[in-house]
Amino acid sequence: MTRSRLLASCLLLSGACLFTATTGAHAENPRPDRSFSTSDAFDASEIPAYAGSHDAVYARIDADLDAHVAELQRWVRQRSISAQDDGIRDMAGLVADDLRALGFQQVELVETPGHPGVLGHYDAGAERTLVVYMMYDVQPIEDNWRIDDPFAGELVEHELGTVLMARGATNQKGPQRAFLNAVDAIIKAQGQLPVNLYVVAEGEEELGSPNFGAVVAPWADRLREADGAFFPMNIQNPAGEATLNLGVKGIIYFELESRGGAWGGPARAEVHGSLKALVDSPALRLVQAIASMTSPDGNTILIPGYYDAVQAPTVAEQRLVNALALASNDRQQQEALGVSRWIDGDEGRDALVRNLYDPTLNIDGIWSGYTGEGVKTILPHVATAKMDSRLPPGLEPDEAFRMLRAHLDANGFEDIVVRPMSGYPAASTPVDDPLVQASIGVFNKYGTRLRVAPWLAGSAPFHHFTRSLGLPFVFGGLGHGSGAHAPDEYMLVHPAAGVEAAGLAAIEKSYVDMLFALGAMGD
Amino acid sequence: MTRSRLLASCLLLSGACLFTATTGAHAENPRPDRSFSTSDAFDASEIPAYAGSHDAVYARIDADLDAHVAELQRWVRQRSISAQDDGIRDMAGLVADDLRALGFQQVELVETPGHPGVLGHYDAGAERTLVVYMMYDVQPIEDNWRIDDPFAGELVEHELGTVLMARGATNQKGPQRAFLNAVDAIIKAQGQLPVNLYVVAEGEEELGSPNFGAVVAPWADRLREADGAFFPMNIQNPAGEATLNLGVKGIIYFELESRGGAWGGPARAEVHGSLKALVDSPALRLVQAIASMTSPDGNTILIPGYYDAVQAPTVAEQRLVNALALASNDRQQQEALGVSRWIDGDEGRDALVRNLYDPTLNIDGIWSGYTGEGVKTILPHVATAKMDSRLPPGLEPDEAFRMLRAHLDANGFEDIVVRPMSGYPAASTPVDDPLVQASIGVFNKYGTRLRVAPWLAGSAPFHHFTRSLGLPFVFGGLGHGSGAHAPDEYMLVHPAAGVEAAGLAAIEKSYVDMLFALGAMGD
Repeated sequence: MTRSRLLASCLLLSGACLFTATTGAHAENPRPDRSFSTSDAFDASEIPAYAGSHDAVYARIDADLDAHVAELQRWVRQRSISAQDDGIRDMAGLVADDLRALGFQQVELVETPGHPGVLGHYDAGAERTLVVYMMYDVQPIEDNWRIDDPFAGELVEHELGTVLMARGATNQKGPQRAFLNAVDAIIKAQGQLPVNLYVVAEGEEELGSPNFGAVVAPWADRLREADGAFFPMNIQNPAGEATLNLGVKGIIYFELESRGGAWGGPARAEVHGSLKALVDSPALRLVQAIASMTSPDGNTILIPGYYDAVQAPTVAEQRLVNALALASNDRQQQEALGVSRWIDGDEGRDALVRNLYDPTLNIDGIWSGYTGEGVKTILPHVATAKMDSRLPPGLEPDEAFRMLRAHLDANGFEDIVVRPMSGYPAASTPVDDPLVQASIGVFNKYGTRLRVAPWLAGSAPFHHFTRSLGLPFVFGGLGHGSGAHAPDEYMLVHPAAGVEAAGLAAIEKSYVDMLFALGAMGD
Repeated sequence: MTRSRLLASCLLLSGACLFTATTGAHAENPRPDRSFSTSDAFDASEIPAYAGSHDAVYARIDADLDAHVAELQRWVRQRSISAQDDGIRDMAGLVADDLRALGFQQVELVETPGHPGVLGHYDAGAERTLVVYMMYDVQPIEDNWRIDDPFAGELVEHELGTVLMARGATNQKGPQRAFLNAVDAIIKAQGQLPVNLYVVAEGEEELGSPNFGAVVAPWADRLREADGAFFPMNIQNPAGEATLNLGVKGIIYFELESRGGAWGGPARAEVHGSLKALVDSPALRLVQAIASMTSPDGNTILIPGYYDAVQAPTVAEQRLVNALALASNDRQQQEALGVSRWIDGDEGRDALVRNLYDPTLNIDGIWSGYTGEGVKTILPHVATAKMDSRLPPGLEPDEAFRMLRAHLDANGFEDIVVRPMSGYPAASTPVDDPLVQASIGVFNKYGTRLRVAPWLAGSAPFHHFTRSLGLPFVFGGLGHGSGAHAPDEYMLVHPAAGVEAAGLAAIEKSYVDMLFALGAMGD
């Protein structure tokens, strides 16, 4: 859930989530000074465009395009709602069968405590090996879908052109099957792939990837020997601009709860509100505990050590941020979000630095007592908040939980329960990594205006690749889609005249180039 | 709602709501020192028992007892759920008809913007005049009622004896009709009442009495000429002990809301939680605003001036509190409530003083964002809390709202909305008032162990009598009932052997005595 939501809002929608700067104005607060040592700006166009041309493969794609569209339709027509265990095992089987049909020599269904994973290995006898991450599950269906059947796989005429409108169209079946179409075209056109491939597919991404470790485990030692990992994704906006995020923040997600007990307060059930003169209030205690964690404006985290663990921007990151600042448009992003200002009125590079390098503390939800109409006077016995904290590289989830607990204890809130629900570290791949350079080279071949960010402000468990497997990791590719998790999810297949985002043929050709570029990586 | 709920929990249930003492331990906090100037304890038994005996009337009651029980049944069988406008006008008509049948010379239905009131006047040509307050409405019905039809008016065998189990049985139709049965018996036995009576009946008590002023208004000048006001009520516990509360605290009830706007935060809808690095959080802002209003333990109000307005305990009140302290049993009350300790571990007189003389600040409910299962990462655009503050005599509702707003503004929370929903001042009648003395005299005639408290920690709009009409006001009487607002509401009619609480005959005889005592008041 977490991951795809942010991908939808931050990656797919014109890359509206990244910004930059030095902090400055807050001298006495615990946020560190993040002055930059360089004002130089990264320029993606300086990286040589991928020079290869694979005309026989491109011709094959053009010839098979209708069949390739039909492959995307076949994937979205197979229901695979992980939250409702609807079609999951059939979809896992479909992925496995497709890999076998493409010529993957080894394909295994991996049982987990949840939904099964799929592992596939295509040994091309090549020097380089790429791990391809896939998710085969989708979100549940909203009541208000724009078409009768979100699993019909319909091609719909849209202001941007012909789109595939369906649950899973862009998140993530469309780009994934487009990638496999590219693999198919290469094999059909010239018999062999330029790289060896591992596919690692899970069916629980929309559930937060709780068993992804178990999916990877059987082949972990083999996967570690690969040269990089890749997640096919539509990252263009309709104007054709792409934002390449080289990582994600980590996250801890937890519930804080205050409940009457030995410390005081009603332990069994609510009591009458007039008893507040004698009875401690769990709701007020929760409010005080949360309040102790931030400045009065709710924006500076007062948990000791919280900011100190964050890694300072490297020179390479500073160059990326300086470039993002040149192109940033705070007002436009604020209008899109319905927000009149960023915190403290920050703009430009200041806002970008805050967004990338500040850990956050956020109330996702809070509830206690009577929440209906009118007047009811009770002293509730329990109060709960759902909270999350985004962790930039350097701030580890275990350490964040430890500091949170220590802060509560040090402030007399020993009785406040912290219930961890999720937690994983940030993941990022340096811009000078050969995998990233190769990937940017392919974008440059297609003349794509590219914004490159060191990471997203959002979170995803990509540490499985960067940390557990020790691989550079790129998620992206040509293509445009929108409405992930929404009732009008689509992927652009045939762009209308004047729409710059790539259509399916161009998307697949760029994946072909990417595979060849990766095969030649470091040569 | 507010009123009857507290009456149910505080008056009807063995008077478990009152306590006492000097504060002491909190030297530097804004709670004033409430040291007592006397250690003398009020002794209700020193007030002479009512000496009159009205044997012809008592005999009439005994002879008519089955018919009197039937009158109670007739009242509860008439539905009158104010919240659902169910039977309201029929019940108002029934009350008016009953008053006429008893001989009230003037009876009027008073239209209001809500449900109608009923005014009745019985001119006995007596020297003294009593205003009798009645509420003819009842709470809605729960799904899990212990009997098939809460409006059947069934007599049920209960461990305490034969009870009338029905919605309205004790809150408040039973004791009110018992009072009218006593009036009927006096008139039948000796032709005339010993006092003139006004009846003021409303049909919106369970809605918070929003139009009670309009019910009283047509006769306000006449009512002001009366000698006192009385509200018939069962205030005995099963063991026969009664708690006579001589007043109530006032209350302000309000919603606090933070919503994204010009100050920051998402104005239109929730945004993704990862945006917290850039976007102000209304939920954190609400939490900080509430937190600013109390000490970290949630128990001392930090709104400047809030405690200062409260009247210090008079010597007469101190004597009442000293007596309550002698009989207080904190542990028993805590066990009944499921609370392991009072605030700061206070007990005995300290706890009683806190309960009576401390204003409160309580969260009745709070909500924002996602409150379902699992993980969802959003930054909600609105956060709301329902809060109430109980006002001891001296702290006026308008002043309390003013101080609250001033505190928020002074702490930079100008954007926090305060939405007043209810507010009225405390009401209390001094123990040495002739009406109270006469009432206690009647309890003493029946050997009732009596706890007398200066007021309840709960709230009710009795200021309509004490302040608007300037009348002493007593609410109470022999009798036991329980389950107001609950699915097993009952009033004890025929106590089992060994049960000390009064049955219907004794209740009615005590009302007879009360009417004669009040008729002779001050003689």
